[in-house]
Parts: sequence; C-alpha cells; structure tokens
Amino acid sequence: MITSRNEAGIAHVLRMLQQEFGKRLQTNPSSCEQHGHTTTWLCNQPPDGVIYPHSTDEVAKIVTLCEHHSVPIIPYGTGTSLEGQVNAPVGGITIDLTHMNQILSVYPEDLQVVVQPGVTREQLNVYLREQGLFFPVDPGADASLGGMTATRASGTNAVLYGTMKDNVIGLELVTAGGAIIRTANRAKKSAAGYDLTQLIVGSEGTLGVITEITLRLRGIPEAVASAVWMFPSVSAACEVTIQAIQSGLRIARIELVDQLTVSAINAYSKLALPEMTSLLLEFHGTEAAVEEQQTSFREITEAFLGEKDSSTVGAEERNKLWKARHNAYWAIRALQPGTQAFVTDVCVPISRLAECVKAAHRRLNDMNLIGPIAGHVGDGNFHCALLFDPEDSDEQSRAEEFVGWLNELAISMDGTCTGEHGIGQGKIAYLEKELGPATDLMRSIKTALDPKQIFNPNKIFSQPVAQGEDGP
Amino acid sequence: MITSRNEAGIAHVLRMLQQEFGKRLQTNPSSCEQHGHTTTWLCNQPPDGVIYPHSTDEVAKIVTLCEHHSVPIIPYGTGTSLEGQVNAPVGGITIDLTHMNQILSVYPEDLQVVVQPGVTREQLNVYLREQGLFFPVDPGADASLGGMTATRASGTNAVLYGTMKDNVIGLELVTAGGAIIRTANRAKKSAAGYDLTQLIVGSEGTLGVITEITLRLRGIPEAVASAVWMFPSVSAACEVTIQAIQSGLRIARIELVDQLTVSAINAYSKLALPEMTSLLLEFHGTEAAVEEQQTSFREITEAFLGEKDSSTVGAEERNKLWKARHNAYWAIRALQPGTQAFVTDVCVPISRLAECVKAAHRRLNDMNLIGPIAGHVGDGNFHCALLFDPEDSDEQSRAEEFVGWLNELAISMDGTCTGEHGIGQGKIAYLEKELGPATDLMRSIKTALDPKQIFNPNKIFSQPVAQGEDGP
Repeated sequence: MITSRNEAGIAHVLRMLQQEFGKRLQTNPSSCEQHGHTTTWLCNQPPDGVIYPHSTDEVAKIVTLCEHHSVPIIPYGTGTSLEGQVNAPVGGITIDLTHMNQILSVYPEDLQVVVQPGVTREQLNVYLREQGLFFPVDPGADASLGGMTATRASGTNAVLYGTMKDNVIGLELVTAGGAIIRTANRAKKSAAGYDLTQLIVGSEGTLGVITEITLRLRGIPEAVASAVWMFPSVSAACEVTIQAIQSGLRIARIELVDQLTVSAINAYSKLALPEMTSLLLEFHGTEAAVEEQQTSFREITEAFLGEKDSSTVGAEERNKLWKARHNAYWAIRALQPGTQAFVTDVCVPISRLAECVKAAHRRLNDMNLIGPIAGHVGDGNFHCALLFDPEDSDEQSRAEEFVGWLNELAISMDGTCTGEHGIGQGKIAYLEKELGPATDLMRSIKTALDPKQIFNPNKIFSQPVAQGEDGP
Repeated sequence: MITSRNEAGIAHVLRMLQQEFGKRLQTNPSSCEQHGHTTTWLCNQPPDGVIYPHSTDEVAKIVTLCEHHSVPIIPYGTGTSLEGQVNAPVGGITIDLTHMNQILSVYPEDLQVVVQPGVTREQLNVYLREQGLFFPVDPGADASLGGMTATRASGTNAVLYGTMKDNVIGLELVTAGGAIIRTANRAKKSAAGYDLTQLIVGSEGTLGVITEITLRLRGIPEAVASAVWMFPSVSAACEVTIQAIQSGLRIARIELVDQLTVSAINAYSKLALPEMTSLLLEFHGTEAAVEEQQTSFREITEAFLGEKDSSTVGAEERNKLWKARHNAYWAIRALQPGTQAFVTDVCVPISRLAECVKAAHRRLNDMNLIGPIAGHVGDGNFHCALLFDPEDSDEQSRAEEFVGWLNELAISMDGTCTGEHGIGQGKIAYLEKELGPATDLMRSIKTALDPKQIFNPNKIFSQPVAQGEDGP
C-alpha cells in the first residue's frame, strides 16, 4: 500500500502541465472533488488536478511526465463506478477523457466500431441507429466506453450478448514509459500470443490509460418483445430461469426484482403492480423467433407454477414496469427519504442464486436493514441497495457488515464478490479471500507493467511496493 | 532466446524423477521423439524425458524440482498442435497430461463442467450426451481440453459458440514456485481483478501447467440442419456470408471450401460434387428456428446470385460432403501422393476475406504451389494446406516463403497471423510484426510470472533472458 503523497513531484507536475495545457488543467477544489467522489459510498479523495487531453499523444506526454516524477494517474470517464475506482487516495492527476469522444470508424461489414474512450454508450447507439447496428452492453448508467472497458462492465442484457469481455476486440493503451501499444488487430478471433486485450479489460486503470477501443456490434433485432411474470418466491423465479436457460431460450434480458423493489417502484412510479417477486424479460430476434421464445417461456412457467397460479401483466403495465426498472435506484432511495444507498453486487453460479438471495433477505431482516434486491438473474448476478441514514453511524456500519457478509457468502458458494462493479477500493479484502494466491500473480503483473506504481494506485489489491522504495 | 542445454540440471532432474516416479518417467528415444514431433512441419526437437503425473500435487512437485534446477518443462496433451508448440528446443521434461483425464464434476443447472487437462473433447461429449449437454468448441482433431485451452483453439462452430476464450470459466494452474492457483470461481461472469483465466488461455504452456479447467456447456440443440451452396467465386461466397451474419442469422457452422479442395474431396471420397467454391452450413435451434434460418439463407443467396444461378445439393450429397470435409486433410494430401502438407492459418476482418483468399490463390499460382484453401468463413479465418515434396528443398522453401507472405498480407489487412493455431515456434517473427511493442508487454509478463524461464521456452516470442543470466 502506497501511503504517502509525493508533494514535491505533484507540485512540479502541476506546474509543467499548467505550462503545456493551460486551462485544460483544472486544480480548483470543486472540480477535483467532483472527480474523486462520484457515485460511491466511499469517502471522497480528490486528485490534485484534472487534465483534459485531446489525443493519444497528449495522454502519452502526461503519462511520461507523471511517471518521471512518480506522480499517480487516475483515468476518468463519466465517474459512474461504484467502488471508489476514481478516488485519488494519495493524490495525483486525474486524466478526464471526456474530450476524447470521437467515433473514429464504423465497419458495418465486420460489425465493428473504433471509438475514443470518452464516447458514451448512448452516444454510440444514437450514432449507430441509422445503420441498423447497436452496441449491446448496458450497465444502466450512460457510462463512457473507456470506463466500461476498464471495469469489465455488463448489465441487463449480458445474458445474451455477454459483458465487455465478450465485446472488446482490441485496445490502444498508453503504458508505463509513455509507450503506445495496440493489444490486437481487428480479426474477429486470434491465437496470437497472450490476450493483452482481456488483461486490460477489467484492470480498472491500474495498467495504463485506454485511448482507443475496437468494439463488436450487433444488428438491431427485427423484433423485441417483453414479458413480466410474477412468482410466489425467489426460488420459483430462479428455478424457472434455470429451466429457460437450460432449454436454450435466447433471452436478451431476465431481471429479478424482489417484492420490496416492486413496492418501491409502485410508490415511486405510481403503479399498482402485484407486490410479488417478478421476472422482467426481453426477447430479441425475428418476429417468429421472438413469438416462439415467449411461448416457450410461458410453457415453462405454467408447467412449474400450474396454469392457474401463473400470472403476468398486460402490455401497458409491462412497459411501465420496464421503464420503472431503470429508475429503481431512485425508487429505492425514496423508500426512506434522506437516506443514502450503499449499492453492492455479487455473482454466484445460477444453481446457488435462490439460496443466496434468500439468505440475504433473512440476514437483512435479522440486521434490521432495508436492502431491496434486483438482479441479472440469468447470470446469477444481483445487486442489493442498502439504505442508511448518513447521520446514523450504527446503521452505516451494519450496512458495511452486511456487504462483507454477502461477499463472503457469494465466495463460499463458488461465486465472486463482484460480477460487474469491480474491486476498486471497496472490495480489496474480498478479492484476496476469493482468489488467494492468484492475487500474487496479479501483483507480479502490476509490478512488471507499472514498476513505479503510478497507474491508479491502491486499487484492486493492496499495492506492491514500487521499485526502489522500502517495504511498507 | 535460450540457446544452450542445461546438461547437468537435466541429468539431475531425470535421476530424481526416476526415483520418485519409476516407470512413469520415460526416456527412451522413441517416446521422446514422439512427444516432440506431432503434426507440425517443423523439425523434431525431442525432450529428454516424458513424465506422466496423476495429480495436481504431482505436477507441482515436478515443477518445483525442474525450476530449482532450471530445467525446461513442456506441457503436452495429444500433440495435435501445428506450430511446434510441443517441441523441446533446449531439451527438458515433457509433462504428458493424458493420465489426468477425469471429468471431475458436471453442474447441469449451471451448464458447467470441471475437467482435468487430459480429457479430450470427444471423451467429454460422449460423457455429456446422456444429460443433453455438449461442449461446442471443435478444432477438428480430438484434442485434449488442456491443449485446446493452452492454444486458444476454436474451429468450425466458433462462429456461433465462440472459441476457448469464450468457453473457459476458470482454471487451476501450477505456476512458478510450484504454487497451485485458481484463476476464478464458477460465477458466470466476474469483475474481480485481472482476468487471469484469459491470460492463461492461449499462453501455450509458457506461464504454467494447466491442471484443471471449468468449461461452459450448452444444451444439445433440438434440431440441427445442414445446407451446401455452390458459388461462382470466392467473392460471391464471402459476400453472402457477410450478409447472412449481418442479418443476425444464427449460423452454427459456415465453412468455405475452394474449388481445389472440392476436387480433392471428390477424388478421395468418390463423390461427384460440382467443382465450385462451396459453403457448407449448419444451423442449430428449435425445429422452427432452424427452418426459418435455412429459408433466410436461401433468400439471401438467391437474391445475390439470382434464383436460376443458385445451386445447392441434395440431402445425401450434403451429408457425404460434411463427412468428407472432416477428412479434407487426407484428401488434400492424396492430391499428390508422397507429399507432406504444411498447414497454416490466418484470420482477417470478414470484409477483407474475399480479397485475402483471392490474393492467396493468385500467389499460389505464381509460385507454382499447390495449396487448397478451406476456412471458417464466418470468422474471417482460413487454412491453406501447402503440399510439398520433402525431397524437394526448393519447393519446401517456396512453401515457407508463401506462408510468410500470407501472414504479412493478413497483418496488413488488420488481421492476425493466426486465428487458431497459435504462435508456437513457427510464427514468432510474425507476432512481432503484428503487434510490435505489445510483445514487449508479453515479455514483461513472462519474466514476471516465470523468472527462471522454465515453462515451454522459446515459444510465442524470442525469450527474455532468465534472471541471473547474461544477455544473449
């Protein structure tokens, strides 16, 4: 763990950047604070300056300068990460990539696009719509594609289209020494050496700064249909999900929302949905294929619940509910006005999901906590949004204790402490519990690729000691 | 590049292994030679001994011993790699993993299986059949799953199901120091730290010995249908493929075979197929979905060629042709009895595929070489099997020159020098041309994870110098 600020180096680098970039370096406290905090529950640790490069060469220049003076670099997209990924615990320079927001090339025949890291997923999809193409990964927030790559983001339709892991073809990256490398060419598959693309996807800015991304696209499906089904229990909803996936149904989204989340949505969006565990589904394909999938899902559900106990909702409510699902975060916070939400995620093998969610419900009850659960059930991934009163330190510490307990439960079920939010600062202890000696390999890679430990220090794992420094 | 044999270390390790493993260490020349050569065109470089461990702990013991004495280790599955991956250029010990061939656990609800590395894909699929499950990656040969993981193998149906990259969930690995690590738990997706699984997939035994693999499975599709279409040119076949993929057709296999390959198949399998560029297709899904896909493909083809110029073959010929496709290697070799085949692969963005294949045909003609081309056209990946008379050194060197030219052509088209065979020894120079400074990152990772350079030395890239040794 790097514990001290390099005051002299930071001051020097700020002066040099000021000379070179003028107003594109910001050092005012509000801008710095805004770049540290974002959407996490962790405390704000602002950088010393925020710089807005316009090109890969400028990024390389900044990296070279910072590395020379051992000053930390924190890459920044839209700041929608949830585990403190953009905090600057020992200060340094945040590289805000929002000005690098060009869509560089679209290759419709190859179903590929090359973007700069500041392009957001909505910006990309608006741009692609006319060509009948879209980029499928949808983490909810209108995040930057650089940030989504760095966090290995996924979201509601990963069950069909995969996560960033499955949709990044190659990257341009500025590495230690200011070198600009390309991890892969545009071939759809490759067996050429180590998969550097996948090493960088999910590395949370700790191995370099992503300056260009080649993404895989899909054709906009001919037909999209949705469905909502109510279940008497979480187990029933999970069991039906497992059967549907085993039978090969091409479900594009399958979202579990628990009873409390439905109540919150009803109150917030003024709906009158039955307050039961629900599955929100979406099917993509041709008209005929979508029709067939819907029928199959109905058959599976009715066979499981019995026809008379199966309940769905009409088209109007269905659309309202899907819309409301996107606002679930605000609906949940409105359950207890004035509270903050501590959002966590875990992912377990789907066979263990019902058990995991039920145990979480019991534990929340035992600990007197409010934590609605919603999740990407087709992947075994779910979120719990723990509400806490920021004035009530006991409630906050119970919420933290619950999150720790849930992470360990997921790990004990052969799952992971994070399916999509990443490790950042918040889950460092749990990564160690999850993978044990494998984290030593990660540290070796970090040291090899970032010997001066300048890239996003103290994230993912307790940092190895920089070369030439003493032990901790 | 490690250039010298560590004679004293090898002799010592052989004595120690002999004591510990008795007859499970083989040092007779025929066994050693058999483990060096396999199916590559490269010269045979046998190891000094072949050891057959029965457990991960035994592998760890062997690795610890070899590392202590700086003796190379070459992991070995079925020896079906094509670029010299199992050669022992500076001697050492081959770890033959064929005795570690247990299927450890099947998780039908999670569509996962855990296997030892010596399990072959056919063994696995026979085992899974009763449960209605299968493992989709099919590189042709009945390769071991450890070897397929190490080479990032793919094959005919990667276009629908992905490559090993997309189908390995996690690994157990014996690393330097004899440590046993797990790269991931069984969650379907994870954002927990660096993706060590993907770093090991495709690392060709250079970072450790894979001792367990968790794989993703699929349900056996309700219906499988095949089709064969003839095309007047490679361009026409590629254009139709692009349109079919863009339109979202779920094609499970789409294989291009050129005119010469069809001729070879006709002669070898006693068929009378029209000697034209052909596409062999397979569709997987429900009865209705497969029917719909076939119709759509027919419509796309007929719209492109005009209905009267579109030609397909009947069910009987179709089945014969698919069967013959699997024997294409032998059919091709029978074109000129007594010749050897020099099999290479490249992969380009699909929009460049027709151009690449046509240029290859022209070049083969200009160089007076016979090289039938067949490929996984949906991925932009194709093979060329160059025939050469082993007695004719001029022909052999022309074949090598052609392969170099083809690799560089693929790279110049933003593609890769290997889509599925890997780098091994044969493509080291081309990896450097393809990724330039990114190979320095690979070397840094290699040095960090294998400081004594014992794992499969002189593969993928010219090896960094081992710690404590002098420069080359």
